[in-house]
Amino acid sequence: MNLPLTPVRFLRYAEQQYPRNTAVVCGGDRYNYTQFAARVARLAGALRESGVKPGDRVALLTGNCHRLLEAYYGVVEAGAVLLPLNTRLAAGELAYILNDSGTKLLFFQSQFMGTVDSFRGELRALESYYLLDAQPEASWIAPLNYDAMLERASPCRPEITSFDENALAELFYTSGTSANPKGVMLTHRNIYLHALNTALSHKPEAAGVELHTIPLFHANGWGVAHFLTLLGGKHVMVPKFDPAEIFLLIERERANFCSLVPAMATALVNCPERTKHDLTSLKRVTIGGAAASPTLIREVEEKLNCECFSGYGLTETAPSLSLAALKPGLNPQGEARFAALASSGYAMPGCELRVVDENDRDVPRDGRAVGEVVARSDGVMQGYWGQPESTAEAMRGGWFHTGDMATWNEDGYLLVVDRKKDMILSGGENISSLEVEKAMLAHPAVLELAVIPVPDRRWGEVPKALVVLKPGATATEAELLEFCRSRLSHYKCPQSVEFLDALPRTGTGKVLKRELRKKYWKDRNSMRPE
Amino acid sequence: MNLPLTPVRFLRYAEQQYPRNTAVVCGGDRYNYTQFAARVARLAGALRESGVKPGDRVALLTGNCHRLLEAYYGVVEAGAVLLPLNTRLAAGELAYILNDSGTKLLFFQSQFMGTVDSFRGELRALESYYLLDAQPEASWIAPLNYDAMLERASPCRPEITSFDENALAELFYTSGTSANPKGVMLTHRNIYLHALNTALSHKPEAAGVELHTIPLFHANGWGVAHFLTLLGGKHVMVPKFDPAEIFLLIERERANFCSLVPAMATALVNCPERTKHDLTSLKRVTIGGAAASPTLIREVEEKLNCECFSGYGLTETAPSLSLAALKPGLNPQGEARFAALASSGYAMPGCELRVVDENDRDVPRDGRAVGEVVARSDGVMQGYWGQPESTAEAMRGGWFHTGDMATWNEDGYLLVVDRKKDMILSGGENISSLEVEKAMLAHPAVLELAVIPVPDRRWGEVPKALVVLKPGATATEAELLEFCRSRLSHYKCPQSVEFLDALPRTGTGKVLKRELRKKYWKDRNSMRPE
Repeated sequence: MNLPLTPVRFLRYAEQQYPRNTAVVCGGDRYNYTQFAARVARLAGALRESGVKPGDRVALLTGNCHRLLEAYYGVVEAGAVLLPLNTRLAAGELAYILNDSGTKLLFFQSQFMGTVDSFRGELRALESYYLLDAQPEASWIAPLNYDAMLERASPCRPEITSFDENALAELFYTSGTSANPKGVMLTHRNIYLHALNTALSHKPEAAGVELHTIPLFHANGWGVAHFLTLLGGKHVMVPKFDPAEIFLLIERERANFCSLVPAMATALVNCPERTKHDLTSLKRVTIGGAAASPTLIREVEEKLNCECFSGYGLTETAPSLSLAALKPGLNPQGEARFAALASSGYAMPGCELRVVDENDRDVPRDGRAVGEVVARSDGVMQGYWGQPESTAEAMRGGWFHTGDMATWNEDGYLLVVDRKKDMILSGGENISSLEVEKAMLAHPAVLELAVIPVPDRRWGEVPKALVVLKPGATATEAELLEFCRSRLSHYKCPQSVEFLDALPRTGTGKVLKRELRKKYWKDRNSMRPE
Repeated sequence: MNLPLTPVRFLRYAEQQYPRNTAVVCGGDRYNYTQFAARVARLAGALRESGVKPGDRVALLTGNCHRLLEAYYGVVEAGAVLLPLNTRLAAGELAYILNDSGTKLLFFQSQFMGTVDSFRGELRALESYYLLDAQPEASWIAPLNYDAMLERASPCRPEITSFDENALAELFYTSGTSANPKGVMLTHRNIYLHALNTALSHKPEAAGVELHTIPLFHANGWGVAHFLTLLGGKHVMVPKFDPAEIFLLIERERANFCSLVPAMATALVNCPERTKHDLTSLKRVTIGGAAASPTLIREVEEKLNCECFSGYGLTETAPSLSLAALKPGLNPQGEARFAALASSGYAMPGCELRVVDENDRDVPRDGRAVGEVVARSDGVMQGYWGQPESTAEAMRGGWFHTGDMATWNEDGYLLVVDRKKDMILSGGENISSLEVEKAMLAHPAVLELAVIPVPDRRWGEVPKALVVLKPGATATEAELLEFCRSRLSHYKCPQSVEFLDALPRTGTGKVLKRELRKKYWKDRNSMRPE
C-alpha cells in the first residue's frame, strides 16, 4: 500500500489522535486541533470556491500568525501551492516574486496595504487580493476578509489517497544575493520526509510546545512546524521578536523548544527581564540562519538553563541538513564541547553530506581542508521554478551543491566557513571572508565590514576590507591592518582598507558582496564578481 | 530529489555517522558498524557471485544470530528478497513455503540439517544450500559455509539511487491457522517508512541498546530492528529465551529496550535470578504477539522498574500499527492506567486505524461495540505473494482488513477481543472466544481450552468449550459451566463442555480452531468452519 506522503496527513493524524490538544496560540486566539483542522478545511473550501485550481500559487504576506500556519495545510489541502513571502523584502522584490511565480491569489496583513498597492499594477497573473486581519476598505481588495471567507466556506477534505506526493506543495524564494530570487520547489514528499527526518534528530516527545520565534516564511522557521503538528504539539506564534515578550510567552505557555538566529539568542541572554520569569519548561534552543559562536552556545546553556546547539540547512533542502548536537559516543569537554555544539553539525537521519573539491571529490576529513558542501536528502527540492539550467547545475552528479564552503572532520561534523562565491582564493590558499571579518570586527572602532577579493598581479586575488566605522569612532587603514595581522595568519589579512558610510544589503539584510566587488573587477577578464 | 526509500540507507547512515559504535553482539561475536557493514557488503557480493539475481528469494532458517541481521541488509543490498523462516514450523510447512515462494538459495543452521534433508527432494526451485554455523559434511550442501563465503567475496555496495523503493525486499509467511501460509510482500518503501513511523512513536534516543528477545524471523521481532540501525544502536541477539540469561545480558550490555510476548514477561517477573542483577539500564519493555493483562503490565513496571506497555500489529502491516503508551493529556490512575497500557493502543504516526462493521462503517467509539480493525499505513504490505484475489479481498475499499475484532474508545485506544473467524455470533450478540477462554482458564483444574461456536437451532450458534484438564485434576462439565456463569454474562457462557487430551496446534503454537469446529459443522450449510 503506497499512501501519498503529504503534510496533509500530519494534520489529519493530529486531529484524529489529539483532538483536544491546543494546536495554536496566537495573541488572544487559541484553537485546539479539532478547531484548527476545521478552519484549515474551510480555508481549502474557500480557495476552491474562489476559483483556485490544483497547482495554482497562493501567496501570503504576513508576519507569524495562526493564519499562516493554517495556510501551511489549507492551501496544500486545496491542491494549490503555498508561497509564503518574506515581509522584509522591498516592494520591487515582492513584485518580482509574484510575477515570476505567476501567483493568482494573495493574502496580506493590513500593514502591507500600501506596499501591495504600490506594485499591484505590475502584477500579471494576480487575480484576487484578500486581507488577513482587517475589514477591506479599498475596491481592489476582496470584500470578504480571510476570517469572513472561512465562515462562509464549505469545508474541503479530499481523501488522502487523492494527493500526488510528487506534486508541488510549497514555493519559497531564496534571498538572491547574487541574482534575482529563485523559487525553490518543494513537493509534498519533500516536506513529509523532511519532517520525519527532523523529528528523529530532535528526539521529540509528543505534544511538545514550540515557540515560533522565527517567521514561518523563513526556511529556518519551518524545520520543526510540520513534525510538531504530527505529534500533536502546540504552536505558539511570536508575531514580533521582543525579548521580554518571549520570556512572558515561555512562562505562560510552558514552551519547550525554540529556534533562534544568533542575534536573537544574544538579545535573550542579555535581557535583564530574564530572571523575573519561570523558564524551567525550556528544554532546547537551536541556533541557525548564521554561524553561532561557542560563547553564545555556552551563554544560552547557562542563562536559559537548557540544551543548545547549532544547525545547518538551506531553503533548497527544506531546510534542515544537520544538527550540532553531540553524537552518542562523543564526549568532548570544555571549549571543545562548545565548539562542536556551535559547528554546522553532522548529517541528520535521511541526509548525506559530503565536502568536495571542484571535481566533486571528497576533501580530507581533517577539520582543515575546505570544500563545497554537497547534499543528498529527501528534503532536497525538486528544482528551481522555471529554471531547468540552474537546477541541473545545482544538482550535478545527483548531489545538491549548496554553494557553502566548509571543513569536515573525522566525526562527520561540518563547519561552514563561507559562501563559495565569497571565498577568496589567494596564491592557492582559500580564505574565508567570514573569518577575516570576524577578526577585524573585534576592533572597537568597527561597526560593520565586508571582506572581498580584489585582483592582485602576484597572488591572483587578495582580501580587501570595506569598513563602516562606529559613529564618532576613528581608525586608520594601517591601524586596522596591523590589528588583523596580530590575530590572523598573514596570508589571510587584507592588503588594504576602504572606509564606507554603509554596506549595501538585500531586503533580508544580507550584505550584497557582489555589488561591492563590481567596482574592483570591472576591467578584468576574471569570473568575478559572478 | 527523490531518493529511494530503502532500508539499505539505514545501514549506510549508521556506517557513516556511527562507525565505531557496536552494531551487534551475538554470543562471543561483536562487530561495530564499520565491521558489520563490511560483512553485509560481502554477503551481498557473495550472493551476486553465487548467481542470485535481482528479485530472487533467499531464505534463512535460523534462530536469532548476527548473520540473520546481516541478511536483513545484505540480501536486500544484493537486490534479492529476504525470506526469514520460522524455526518452529514443521518440515511440511517449511517445504510448502520454500516451494510457494520459489526460493533459490537457503541458509540454515546445522541444527536443522535433518529437517532440511527430509524435504529437500520436494523443493522445486531451490538450487543451493549453505550452512550458517558449521563445516558442511554432506554433498548436497555447498562446500563453503556462510563465513567462508563472506571471506572470499568481493564487497557489493550498489549506489542508493539504483534501488527501486517499490521493489520487493522481504517476504514473510503468515502462520496460516485457517489455510496454507500466505507470503506477505513488503517493499523497500514499506520497511523504510514503517521504521520511521515506529521510531517516532518510541521517542528514540540515538545509540540505544535493544535486546532481541523475540526471533527476528517473527513479525513482533522486527518492529524496532531497522530504526535501531538508523540511529546507530546496539543489537543484542538472544539465541534462546532463558530468563536468567536475559538478566545477565541486560546487565552486561546495559540493555535499554526489549519486546516480549506475555509468556516471556511472566517468566521474567517470576524468575528469582532477577534480584541478583543490575537492571537499571532498562528503560522500556513492550509486550505484543498476544494480549497482555493489566496485572502483567503492573508487574513488569514494578519488578523490572521500567516503562511497560502493549502494542498491536500483524505481519501484513510490517508489523506495528499501534502502541498502548499513554497519550499526552491522558492521565488515568490506578487500574484504568494499567488497562490502557495493556490495551491494543492507539494508531502510531503514519497509521490510521478504524473499527468497522460488516459494511465497513465505523462502529461507535464507546469501548463496547465490536467491529473489525481496518488499517491504512505506509507499512501495509503490497499484497500476498501470488494471491491477487486474497489481496483484493483483504484490501477492499483501500483499507487493509486485519481479521481482528476490537472495540475502540473516544481516546482512540483499541482493544482487540478476538480473531474475526473465532468470534461467536449468538442471538445477534458477538461473543469473544478469548474472553470466555480467559474466564474458564481461571478454574484450577483447567490446563488449556478452546471455545468455539457450535450450531444451535434457537440462537444460530452458541459457545462450546473444549477443555484439556491438568494431569491428575478432575472437573465435571456441570462444574465448569457453573464456574463460567459466576464470572460472565449468561449469553457468553458455553452451553456444553467436551474434554480432550490435547488441542491441535500450528507449528508456531496457535490453536487450530478451524480443525476443532469441523466436527460440529460438517452436516450444515453454514459458512463455518471457514
